[in-house]
Amino acid sequence: MTEVKNVTAAVLIIGNEVLSGRTRDANLNWMARRLTDMGIRLMEARVIPDVEEVIVAAINEARAKYDYVFTTGGIGPTHDDITAACVAKAFGVGIERHPEAVKLLQTYIPADRLNEARLKMADVPIGGELIQNPVSKAPGFRMENVFVMAGVPSIMRVMFDGLAPYLQGGTRVLSQAVASYLPEGTVAEGLGQIQERYPDADIGSYPFYRDGKFGCTLVTRTADEADLAAAAAEIRALITSLGGEPLDQDLVSPDAEDDEEDDFKTGDG
Amino acid sequence: MTEVKNVTAAVLIIGNEVLSGRTRDANLNWMARRLTDMGIRLMEARVIPDVEEVIVAAINEARAKYDYVFTTGGIGPTHDDITAACVAKAFGVGIERHPEAVKLLQTYIPADRLNEARLKMADVPIGGELIQNPVSKAPGFRMENVFVMAGVPSIMRVMFDGLAPYLQGGTRVLSQAVASYLPEGTVAEGLGQIQERYPDADIGSYPFYRDGKFGCTLVTRTADEADLAAAAAEIRALITSLGGEPLDQDLVSPDAEDDEEDDFKTGDG
Repeated sequence: MTEVKNVTAAVLIIGNEVLSGRTRDANLNWMARRLTDMGIRLMEARVIPDVEEVIVAAINEARAKYDYVFTTGGIGPTHDDITAACVAKAFGVGIERHPEAVKLLQTYIPADRLNEARLKMADVPIGGELIQNPVSKAPGFRMENVFVMAGVPSIMRVMFDGLAPYLQGGTRVLSQAVASYLPEGTVAEGLGQIQERYPDADIGSYPFYRDGKFGCTLVTRTADEADLAAAAAEIRALITSLGGEPLDQDLVSPDAEDDEEDDFKTGDG
Repeated sequence: MTEVKNVTAAVLIIGNEVLSGRTRDANLNWMARRLTDMGIRLMEARVIPDVEEVIVAAINEARAKYDYVFTTGGIGPTHDDITAACVAKAFGVGIERHPEAVKLLQTYIPADRLNEARLKMADVPIGGELIQNPVSKAPGFRMENVFVMAGVPSIMRVMFDGLAPYLQGGTRVLSQAVASYLPEGTVAEGLGQIQERYPDADIGSYPFYRDGKFGCTLVTRTADEADLAAAAAEIRALITSLGGEPLDQDLVSPDAEDDEEDDFKTGDG
């Protein structure tokens, strides 16, 4: 049995524009994949509005519950950018104009344009450490286990890449996908029995519709290599016993690969 | 002053596969836009894992707090589909094989393939009403103010379209976007003053990078038509006074329109 070091995280996506539907979040999936690769288990993601008490409560709940909290959004120069103030409130500290952050802005923004609104982007809760932003310089920051990043995807990504080396990853959860053109309802009973035999693994079933045929990808996720191989072998055998052909691939519906799935079709079958 | 009927909602996206990054959620933005169009304010969205106690707690918190709760995911035939059982637990009721749901499955699935796993899709908490699924027949269901839908986008969408006429919309929040090629930091001070003059409106600033130029779209959202027109007029005047050209458009970065924004560029400017 592999010794498992369980490291957890939550993502808070801050912004009315995501909840109104104006903006489609493009950060969650990217972060989820990166965290998984690092052995950090994303346990929860929340999209919350630009409302102080909601942001403060969500930060305090998440930072107590998970090893890491990542926020996106609300750190620009306008009045609706209130994330830094909310993080300060959540930690019960004041906010200060961070001298190093001011210098970063000065390198990028001509003095005659470095107005009070732009300088607000240098305001950081007392005790916060800066997260570099090579794209547009205005930094994010870290307060203990809370990492505060921009909402613009290109900036969030470089910020995350910069802070990632400082995160302590846990045991990496390994995954093995086995797909077949058997529908979910056909494999369900045998799959449930395999799950019972591997209680420390998560076995998920994900239906797809490809080339006019229904099928499902069966994904085993566990930190234990031996369990992974054994469960996947049992899944392959199950598929074969039911007349299917097991494929070591993670198949999805072709339309599911982009985001506009209006003509996506599936069925339990 | 318009009398405002405030109707609120939360979305719960249930599924390990979204948190691990295997699957990119394609439901939230679609639902957010539909709810906004109906005058229902989406106040929160959560992505949560296939873990009973987490699902039960999230449902109970959300159904007490908001007028409507919409869940996606976890209603298929496999062992990892536990949403119906969790909703029953959240409401403190048992679960039953719904005769009408069984009939629906019988119309679609040949008798020799209608095994126990597939019949599980007819299990509904006692008191639940079915939500029709014209795509693959296995229904969703409603328990009081909680609407339980499939995770597959095409099915979620037809389920939502079917249940939408039964929702009581509130006062529709109107929005007006005014874009310009002035960067956020330039408009921030004046924009904050406009926000102060219209405390019942939400004024948001969203930066973009298009055709080699930075700019931002300033979006006013309010149920009050007079406030909407007046705030938008002040925003246009602000832009003009700062040397910009106001455009009655919701401009975003071209790359932000799809989901792969690796080469997306922006800057506060």
